[in-house]
Amino acid sequence: MKTQFADRMQHVQKSFIREILKVTLNPEVISFAGGLPNPDSFPVEEISAAAQKVLSQDGKNAMQYSTTEGYLPLRQMISDRYVHRFGLHISPDEILITNGSQQALDLLGKVFLNKGDNVAIERPGYLGAIQAFSIFEPEFHSVPLNEDGVDLELLETELQSHSPKLFYTVPNFQNPSGLTYSYENRKKTAEILYRHSTVLIEDDPYGELRFLGQNVPPVKAFLGENSVLLGSFSKIVAPSMRLGWICANREITEKLITAKQAADLHTNFFSQRVVTQYLTDNDLDLHIGKIKTMYKLQRDCMVEMIERYFPAEVKYTQPEGGMFLWVTLPKPMSSITLFESASKVNVAFVPGDPFYVNENYVNTLRLNYTNSNPTEIEEGIKRLGRVIREEMAHL
Amino acid sequence: MKTQFADRMQHVQKSFIREILKVTLNPEVISFAGGLPNPDSFPVEEISAAAQKVLSQDGKNAMQYSTTEGYLPLRQMISDRYVHRFGLHISPDEILITNGSQQALDLLGKVFLNKGDNVAIERPGYLGAIQAFSIFEPEFHSVPLNEDGVDLELLETELQSHSPKLFYTVPNFQNPSGLTYSYENRKKTAEILYRHSTVLIEDDPYGELRFLGQNVPPVKAFLGENSVLLGSFSKIVAPSMRLGWICANREITEKLITAKQAADLHTNFFSQRVVTQYLTDNDLDLHIGKIKTMYKLQRDCMVEMIERYFPAEVKYTQPEGGMFLWVTLPKPMSSITLFESASKVNVAFVPGDPFYVNENYVNTLRLNYTNSNPTEIEEGIKRLGRVIREEMAHL
Repeated sequence: MKTQFADRMQHVQKSFIREILKVTLNPEVISFAGGLPNPDSFPVEEISAAAQKVLSQDGKNAMQYSTTEGYLPLRQMISDRYVHRFGLHISPDEILITNGSQQALDLLGKVFLNKGDNVAIERPGYLGAIQAFSIFEPEFHSVPLNEDGVDLELLETELQSHSPKLFYTVPNFQNPSGLTYSYENRKKTAEILYRHSTVLIEDDPYGELRFLGQNVPPVKAFLGENSVLLGSFSKIVAPSMRLGWICANREITEKLITAKQAADLHTNFFSQRVVTQYLTDNDLDLHIGKIKTMYKLQRDCMVEMIERYFPAEVKYTQPEGGMFLWVTLPKPMSSITLFESASKVNVAFVPGDPFYVNENYVNTLRLNYTNSNPTEIEEGIKRLGRVIREEMAHL
Repeated sequence: MKTQFADRMQHVQKSFIREILKVTLNPEVISFAGGLPNPDSFPVEEISAAAQKVLSQDGKNAMQYSTTEGYLPLRQMISDRYVHRFGLHISPDEILITNGSQQALDLLGKVFLNKGDNVAIERPGYLGAIQAFSIFEPEFHSVPLNEDGVDLELLETELQSHSPKLFYTVPNFQNPSGLTYSYENRKKTAEILYRHSTVLIEDDPYGELRFLGQNVPPVKAFLGENSVLLGSFSKIVAPSMRLGWICANREITEKLITAKQAADLHTNFFSQRVVTQYLTDNDLDLHIGKIKTMYKLQRDCMVEMIERYFPAEVKYTQPEGGMFLWVTLPKPMSSITLFESASKVNVAFVPGDPFYVNENYVNTLRLNYTNSNPTEIEEGIKRLGRVIREEMAHL
């Protein structure tokens, strides 16, 4: 049989991470590779109670087709929470419920990107965004990250030279680097984007998970209309529910609704109802507090073990929240090569390569700390330190 | 603010049906417009029991991220059911779980269609497919339907003249016409597609809902590899769960998995687990039997009322299953004009126009019978008959 696939499929690689996760199927492997929340944080009983309540009180409606926009009371809660957290007013009419943030990226790519359009993205950048946008065949341009956020001079240069349509960013505890944009950096990023009429795509799955330092408002707060802000319940309630959202002005939202309707009619309404009930009957701040306590312990443990077991030449970020830290090996080491050696001692992580648009055999890697307990973290980092020292001895 | 959207968005109209459904929000309107299953058929208590069981027995896994392919036991059940119903062997590896069938259409469009590629579709055709594919800017070519299926001569001619990449069909109780392909028609359709190497996209959301006549195997059974078969739990369990599936060979499935991963990582896993539990603990055939009994009564009532209240010049299909029947008004009547008159007496339906790729002010319309009780059906058809007579008097 001859099948002829669309050209766009040549531009999308099957996720590197997905291939890596196969290694981690071996139960003996200590994995820092995935991006999984700690399942001990899932509110299993509360969700069960919410499901029962929704089905017993309004089962027939909760099982029927629903609107493309998403369940209004849920959109209202999301809107209220932005007011509560930042005094940021986003009308429920400007919120669209999606199948997790990943679908938001697909819909934004569909609605904005013609083949060959320029897209600016952080270096390193979130690979799910690179994958989602790649389907629409844009030209990527990456802008490096510093400790306090995107490199503003290089952002300015990039916007001047290529006038990208979109700038994609994860300003809080970025995936993969764990870095966070400062208040000043956000303000200036917004100014630069505004001046060049580049649309901000601000992805914020981890912002609620700050366990150190002070909350900073979204970049959108400094930019207003010309911006799109994404959120998700995956990291604060549960990923299996696939509930995310897009905040955008009405014009963009209308286009997104048209694309969403063609893509899947609407987001799982049963889950929307269950999560709305869960949020009504429980204190989300209290729940998030528990997650943060858990993640801070895990993060502190990983940082401590890195200090103890990694050679001093290895650099790493110290995230104030979120799920990842980012390691830079001495050059000319390659994290792909290290991945292979580490596999042999049953430790996994994600090599940096898939987070770069045009680079290979980089010397960086991502470590996740939320899905391993302190004993695993100590043992895994110890083994990884040993493998790094061995490789460095051959430099 | 200036936003510049992608060219593809010019090709997609916001759903006509969605606009029409706004009329039906008025509770006084008797609506034959939607495509909603009867909510009395939803297994509310059984789903509640399944949700509790899954969460109490395996809550942490049921709330975590999962694989792009979908939950293996669910794919196994789907595979087993094709064997049980038709002796058709489809490996679970050749089944991908989607957010309802609508997402299957989006993924297939992504994977197969370059701009300008030819796509053959039934006339009238399912508007959700027209919408989903339109995003990828193909050229549509429509082939008329007869009582026993697609017009084979015209299908042959179409495939000869335009070599379409895909042929999209709903062979069981088609949406919108309610027509079903005969055994012979399926066999010949398969032969013609095979000869021209056109990929079959066979959408089958209603096939389980046959309340008259004999089951006929899917067209895929006559074609094998060069075919894609879609299914859905929306009409046999509940639409809010957004659970559909794609059966395709491994090569196509691999591409679809890559596209699915970029689109939303995976389908709602909580719902996959709940529905799998529901199917394990309940007799699906028994449940479907109840739905069919209900729908046959509603369909018989609508046919009887049409016979009683519509002028003899009005033609209509008599479906053997599914949710819709299709009405043809005497020319030069327009169903859009009739829709406006019908709105004034609080009756709604879907005018034929959005089911055609290149036609306007057509004389056909779609009636749904599954979401109205016999009293509403009698009253609604009576009013509609009166409005039709009034319009005919002015011809």
